[in-house]
Amino acid sequence: MAPQITLYTVGTPNGQKVSIALDELKIDHKVHQIQFSTNEQKEEWFLKINPNGRIPAIVDHSRGDFAVFESGAILLYLAEHHDPDHILLPEDPNQKSEAIQWLMWQMGGLGPMQGQANHFFRYAPEKIPYGIKRYQDETKRLYSVMERRFADGRDFLAGPYSVADIACFTWTAVNQWALGPDFSISDYPLVEKWLHRVAERPAVVSGMKPSTIIQDGFRSKITAAEAEARAQEAAKWILAEKEKNAEEKL
Amino acid sequence: MAPQITLYTVGTPNGQKVSIALDELKIDHKVHQIQFSTNEQKEEWFLKINPNGRIPAIVDHSRGDFAVFESGAILLYLAEHHDPDHILLPEDPNQKSEAIQWLMWQMGGLGPMQGQANHFFRYAPEKIPYGIKRYQDETKRLYSVMERRFADGRDFLAGPYSVADIACFTWTAVNQWALGPDFSISDYPLVEKWLHRVAERPAVVSGMKPSTIIQDGFRSKITAAEAEARAQEAAKWILAEKEKNAEEKL
Repeated sequence: MAPQITLYTVGTPNGQKVSIALDELKIDHKVHQIQFSTNEQKEEWFLKINPNGRIPAIVDHSRGDFAVFESGAILLYLAEHHDPDHILLPEDPNQKSEAIQWLMWQMGGLGPMQGQANHFFRYAPEKIPYGIKRYQDETKRLYSVMERRFADGRDFLAGPYSVADIACFTWTAVNQWALGPDFSISDYPLVEKWLHRVAERPAVVSGMKPSTIIQDGFRSKITAAEAEARAQEAAKWILAEKEKNAEEKL
Repeated sequence: MAPQITLYTVGTPNGQKVSIALDELKIDHKVHQIQFSTNEQKEEWFLKINPNGRIPAIVDHSRGDFAVFESGAILLYLAEHHDPDHILLPEDPNQKSEAIQWLMWQMGGLGPMQGQANHFFRYAPEKIPYGIKRYQDETKRLYSVMERRFADGRDFLAGPYSVADIACFTWTAVNQWALGPDFSISDYPLVEKWLHRVAERPAVVSGMKPSTIIQDGFRSKITAAEAEARAQEAAKWILAEKEKNAEEKL
């Protein structure tokens, strides 16, 4: 049988969110790895699927090849159309809203800010202390907001396991990419426990692989030299894309 | 009769989104202006409503004082519980998903990136050309994505008027705050037409007032001196909050 969904992705936190969700729902899907090195994400055929030219995106063959972009929107779409058992989003309306609140918090805060920490700390061609500090501080502040959230003894961010945990997990898992090898998530002990709790789920184990760029920041370490080598590799296409955008006045 | 909802807000793009939505739905509500100057958003009573210590947030008295934070989550909550006529979100499932996709695009891209342009261009204590250029370029790229979207002759971002337009409008309207007085949104003519189309709606007119910080960037101009004065005023509490967070190791 043909797969239900095609996923266009790369093994980064935003891509992994969708892989985890598809595995949670046991949806038969095909993976198209987007080649950033050749700027595939800016090709005309892909812009028809995701006008923003980013990953992840899906095409749902079971619903007339409907295309969805933005990881947060894909999670809500899968919950709406492929989740009769409410694995991704609670049925209770208040818990559902809470899950969406923390999903939005990840989409508007944790993701973009930790992403900027990655940029200034790992990829930027000049080391700019102000930029590094600004986004590393904000990333830590956001971890402290989660730590506070877990202070009431809850297991997950919003009632039962949900899209909120998936979205916040993939980013928080790679904390050392943004914060360096001297940072330890055990400074946020309830967040650390939650990371391990989420990481045990089979769909999370499968959905997190393969990570193309960044390492797991709470169970294993990579050496500083290895991190530097990976950062330089990633910086190549990140900066190449910026150049290309500037040329095209995109 | 007591108001249905209390809105905790400030007249910034994220706050204005919710004011517009409440006015679209003609929901009787009370407005609590949060005082950033006294760090009111970090007070214990407010963190119970919004654990992230940011605006906007709402408390829904008509549903057991249920609290909702994150502007994108508030918009989806209002659509789910207070919008029987589908003013905020189309009933058609594909159009609904498209509206959520563009809402997520604003939450994860346009808002955070234009916000960083504001920071480096207007508020940062040092002028860092790399930071200014990085975020101004990305803001313009995001405008170009919208411009492309409108190339098929559509009036709104996703089918009929929706939360997607509300969310993208409040940010795009204040383009000159991020990009300076020499920037003109008429470089993106279809976006400019859409701005005027959205701006005509009575709920948008009422919801955009008062803007505490930043000026309308497509109908009127402020002088460079006036902009500088406003930026310095805003920088006071923005940098004070950063200091305070650093002290608290938040």
